[in-house]
Amino acid sequence: MRYAVLGTGAVGRTLAERLLSLGHDVVLGTRDPAATLARTGPAGSGAQVEPYAAWQAGHPRAGLAAFAEAARSGEVLVNATGGRVSIEVLTAAGAGHLDGKVLIDLANPLDFSGGWPPVLDPANSDSLGELIQRTFPGARVVKTLNTMNCAVMVDPARVPGDHHVFLSGDDEDAKSSVRELLQSFGWPPDCILDLGGIQTARGVEMLLPVWLTLMGRLGHADFNFHIQGARPRA
Amino acid sequence: MRYAVLGTGAVGRTLAERLLSLGHDVVLGTRDPAATLARTGPAGSGAQVEPYAAWQAGHPRAGLAAFAEAARSGEVLVNATGGRVSIEVLTAAGAGHLDGKVLIDLANPLDFSGGWPPVLDPANSDSLGELIQRTFPGARVVKTLNTMNCAVMVDPARVPGDHHVFLSGDDEDAKSSVRELLQSFGWPPDCILDLGGIQTARGVEMLLPVWLTLMGRLGHADFNFHIQGARPRA
Repeated sequence: MRYAVLGTGAVGRTLAERLLSLGHDVVLGTRDPAATLARTGPAGSGAQVEPYAAWQAGHPRAGLAAFAEAARSGEVLVNATGGRVSIEVLTAAGAGHLDGKVLIDLANPLDFSGGWPPVLDPANSDSLGELIQRTFPGARVVKTLNTMNCAVMVDPARVPGDHHVFLSGDDEDAKSSVRELLQSFGWPPDCILDLGGIQTARGVEMLLPVWLTLMGRLGHADFNFHIQGARPRA
Repeated sequence: MRYAVLGTGAVGRTLAERLLSLGHDVVLGTRDPAATLARTGPAGSGAQVEPYAAWQAGHPRAGLAAFAEAARSGEVLVNATGGRVSIEVLTAAGAGHLDGKVLIDLANPLDFSGGWPPVLDPANSDSLGELIQRTFPGARVVKTLNTMNCAVMVDPARVPGDHHVFLSGDDEDAKSSVRELLQSFGWPPDCILDLGGIQTARGVEMLLPVWLTLMGRLGHADFNFHIQGARPRA
């Protein structure tokens, strides 16, 4: 499969690396590929993220293209951009390049501009997942994986024991294909919880504030939500 | 210990029954005790909740009083009212009757008036826990237990396996005393996660939308959040 991963930060790179390791073709999408390759400082918000060119050198099979070209060439799209710029990025990618395609939305619309703790925008009576689906009705949006650190997304065994990943989306076939992808990442079938339509993205995005609090209290990000009692009762 | 449980619905009764079984004195608080005792229809939102008088007959040691009298007599207060009326109820209880006391806040400010799904109000940049603490600065507010069904609150073993209860509050001594109470309910010490100050109530209240979605998908309420990986790493 040919994936377009929109976003070249830690989340996008982690997804891209895992997809490549599974034999997929991957093009990362960015605003200005030349600028992305020319950057020498640490990338994005994570001071520990190496410059893109250095990462690219270690991942020669990863393509890099402007958002529109990446989206055009991808059969499946992954939104790994910051949630507050996702609509702008997807607009730049081009609605026509999204039509009919599965769009995996990993993003959380966290606004850190007011300091700590960040607030979600949209939230509560709306969600980024719904906003993307409404704005790009031709895309088959599946909200998933946004409730954990990116290292756990692609390697759930990092966190010992059972824990869950959620699926929200209106297109059942799209959710089935994402379920298969998650299993290829190592997610056991009964740890993938389909919550229903894209409106249920509201609840999973609202998990982020407690996730951030937990990361601060625990001092690491190798944890995840497990819904104890989720298995059908005897 | 003498507890005042504000609210006579399923949550208040479940807490009261458990506290009584542990040998505590309990007075339930209500707006108008005579009216509460005279009601013959099902109580509150749960059609399966028996009239209060019938419940009272089976729990002769449970007292019933107006909010202010209940709050006056209680050494520890439990807010088991609907989150959207909690401030009004606590105002009726009387700020002077809250001063210096531990106030355990179980409530969630869910507004169902716009249909399904409900929205939280306040939410995101505020929480009911913080609002109560700000409105009644003399109370020692501890937000806890709001992230699960009331049957699980007082009997965590209903849900097999490890799962968590959170604590949020600015008063360390108050949290310590609530921790002891939770242990007397059956919560293992390492399943009680202190998240920090009352501001962290924001995150735990924001768990409610996904909790409601899960209840709908699973078809039961005997589940709870477990933070897999929360134990310190070796």
